[in-house]
Amino acid sequence: MINKIKNLALLTDLYELTMTACYFEQDMFDRATFSLFVRNYPPHRRFFVAAGLEEVLDYLKNLNFTPEDLDYLDKTKLFKSSFLSYLEKFKFSGDVYALPEGRIFFVNEPIVEITAPLIEAQIIETYIINAFNLQTMIATKAARCLQAAWPCQLIDFALRRTQGVDAGLKVARASYIGGFIGTSNVLAGKIYGLPIFGTMAHSFITSFDKEIEAFQAFAQSFPENTVLLVDTYDTIAGVRKAAIVGKEMAREGKKLKGIRLDSGNIVRLSQQVKQVLQKERLEDVSIFASGGFDEFKIQKVLEKGGAVDSFGVGTKMGVSADAPYLDMAYKLVQYKSRPVLKLSPGKMTLPAEKQVFRFKNDKGRLIKDVIGLRDDRLEGGEPLLQKVMAGGEIVTSLPSLPQIQKTFLAEFALLEDKFKAIKPAHEFFPVQLSPRLKKLKADIVQKLKKEELGES
Amino acid sequence: MINKIKNLALLTDLYELTMTACYFEQDMFDRATFSLFVRNYPPHRRFFVAAGLEEVLDYLKNLNFTPEDLDYLDKTKLFKSSFLSYLEKFKFSGDVYALPEGRIFFVNEPIVEITAPLIEAQIIETYIINAFNLQTMIATKAARCLQAAWPCQLIDFALRRTQGVDAGLKVARASYIGGFIGTSNVLAGKIYGLPIFGTMAHSFITSFDKEIEAFQAFAQSFPENTVLLVDTYDTIAGVRKAAIVGKEMAREGKKLKGIRLDSGNIVRLSQQVKQVLQKERLEDVSIFASGGFDEFKIQKVLEKGGAVDSFGVGTKMGVSADAPYLDMAYKLVQYKSRPVLKLSPGKMTLPAEKQVFRFKNDKGRLIKDVIGLRDDRLEGGEPLLQKVMAGGEIVTSLPSLPQIQKTFLAEFALLEDKFKAIKPAHEFFPVQLSPRLKKLKADIVQKLKKEELGES
Repeated sequence: MINKIKNLALLTDLYELTMTACYFEQDMFDRATFSLFVRNYPPHRRFFVAAGLEEVLDYLKNLNFTPEDLDYLDKTKLFKSSFLSYLEKFKFSGDVYALPEGRIFFVNEPIVEITAPLIEAQIIETYIINAFNLQTMIATKAARCLQAAWPCQLIDFALRRTQGVDAGLKVARASYIGGFIGTSNVLAGKIYGLPIFGTMAHSFITSFDKEIEAFQAFAQSFPENTVLLVDTYDTIAGVRKAAIVGKEMAREGKKLKGIRLDSGNIVRLSQQVKQVLQKERLEDVSIFASGGFDEFKIQKVLEKGGAVDSFGVGTKMGVSADAPYLDMAYKLVQYKSRPVLKLSPGKMTLPAEKQVFRFKNDKGRLIKDVIGLRDDRLEGGEPLLQKVMAGGEIVTSLPSLPQIQKTFLAEFALLEDKFKAIKPAHEFFPVQLSPRLKKLKADIVQKLKKEELGES
Repeated sequence: MINKIKNLALLTDLYELTMTACYFEQDMFDRATFSLFVRNYPPHRRFFVAAGLEEVLDYLKNLNFTPEDLDYLDKTKLFKSSFLSYLEKFKFSGDVYALPEGRIFFVNEPIVEITAPLIEAQIIETYIINAFNLQTMIATKAARCLQAAWPCQLIDFALRRTQGVDAGLKVARASYIGGFIGTSNVLAGKIYGLPIFGTMAHSFITSFDKEIEAFQAFAQSFPENTVLLVDTYDTIAGVRKAAIVGKEMAREGKKLKGIRLDSGNIVRLSQQVKQVLQKERLEDVSIFASGGFDEFKIQKVLEKGGAVDSFGVGTKMGVSADAPYLDMAYKLVQYKSRPVLKLSPGKMTLPAEKQVFRFKNDKGRLIKDVIGLRDDRLEGGEPLLQKVMAGGEIVTSLPSLPQIQKTFLAEFALLEDKFKAIKPAHEFFPVQLSPRLKKLKADIVQKLKKEELGES
């Protein structure tokens, strides 16, 4: 089980170890730079929200091979003892430039660049991609839900169907970055300090002889936090019983906080429920909806006049159901001060150490990004990548989650609607290459075609 | 980070704790039975492969709240100290009936039924769903890949884009259950004893001055395990260089094991690569393909005559991209010996403690399942659910992963092709209710409609 995993060094593709063993034998210890970026937009996406950096820095800072790890590698009979001795002393000593969490970025832009001795920079690949891929994908999906729901509030309900335990935690964190107000996930609440939310399931109702008895018992136990699930048998019959309990609570100086709808036609039911509540003078009881929501369903329900105040957003956000992975890649861009790229069809990379420059218009709106060489100086452009690790040590103070959320919300407001619409424009946010980067790339392509493909 | 999580008790939706706190205050300690099942088939699916039980039994056996957990719950100010004292002594003491891992099942069939004092049976809901959902979904996806690829071999390459660390491990395990021969994931190899596979990435090639130097260095380090990635610059130019290295190896009494294609038109390239290898008398060098494979792409490549011997199957299998979650639910079906169900639209449940009976024809092929009451006796039907835990203790010997894979492969062979085709028949495998279950359900629906909805 996951809580029995003591060390993450072996959480890697075997080829990271076979490649680096070969580098070791070839004495290839020069410094290399790798760049992490997303190759393509998934359907409906025209932006990404960076998330995952804190976890990656923690991983890099603590990465080491335990005697147990080395014992296992030895038993595979793949590795020579000289390489295992090297791993025994392994410590990540590299530098990291990164986009801060919560910032918006676009296709092909490096979000992290890592420079370290080749073996160190290579061996971390699998984990780096895994970490940024998940949290960035979820923060982006959450941002889309926020765009659809605004000004309704959103709560992460995904834990039961996230892809595993680790995802359950990171979905809570990343959806908060993307504008959610909290999560149902108690452990995420504890670990990340997130607000937690939750009331009752259908089984709570069915374990009592009568629905109204379940409502009354809950109101008695949680008078400050009574949100009643009304659809177990019939939503309208359920809300009438909830209204009775609401009035009983009022007589005792308490207040029914909300009712929850979890099935059926939410537009129609929420309107009917609102009427019942108004008729019973319970108009400040909020209406909370859950059950299969994502940005598409939220938008539909609100456009059709659904009387919903907040949404529990679960599975489809928590697995990013319409785009459950990003085409994220970690590629060697420089070795021994020599910029490199690969020519594989559809997968060509941008060489050298880079920087991303962001340009705004005089109203502060985002107008274009330029990917340049790291030592490019582009007037008026904000350089986005910051040095966050040097010599294996974190050299920046990491922001809190509320600060990261604030960073995201502030920049999201500056992105044009056509790029953040639920069904966005066909056009992409403008991302250009700097003249020096463009020339470098062309020169290397020409050289490679000559040398490797025999073209003249 | 995930390896710092010491205990999983708080990995739950908050409502499990608010509900059970209310049960506690209401003195509701009677035994309840919950049933876990899948409500609907995702697109293209007509069967599921059960996986996740071992993890769940481990969780149930070890579930407890640490002082640190209780301290956090106390700080939320949601819970009374009497309930926290109850949690302090919490231990799962229930009984579990389950479908063995690797068995095939269908919509609405209970795959696990858990009977325990109400609080114990409720508080585990979130984790139970999370665990079975992920591994069952992946084992099912892997089985579909196997169906498409047979007799080619499949290796799990998903780790870099699985949804988190836990998923990375469980995808390796579940895809092995579904017929894969191993994984690239080293930690999964260590934890689960799975065969591990891996050679080199494009960055390996680009970190050498010349492609052929990279090939030669790898062959020197791993003469027993040389699979060369040939598409970094140009596949055909690459395979010619690989052939040179293959012949160099042959002269030294070694053998080039394979070449790997990772981009481009795999059908055409694999045929051309095979011709080059044949011409160079390297026809026993195997051709390994990776890059965006799932059951759909595997089928297409093989149908069109792709000369591939084995596939690395990554992201799309590892997140079950076309169906990234199952509509899996854990529902109260009995409390205080009283069978219960819920009537929510589209989500009605089957009441009472149940059993699933599997029927075969005289050729041994699967012909139908019948869901019955647990004490039903249906002649000729194999009862599928087995008692695996009693009083909180595991009462069965858990099979090894190779045994589970064998169980799966044997039963999969008995399922008609129309249900396991990549684009399956519209019809579903026949699943019926036993006469006694059918009558019980009808009786309860009638009673509920009268009592809760005021219908006569």
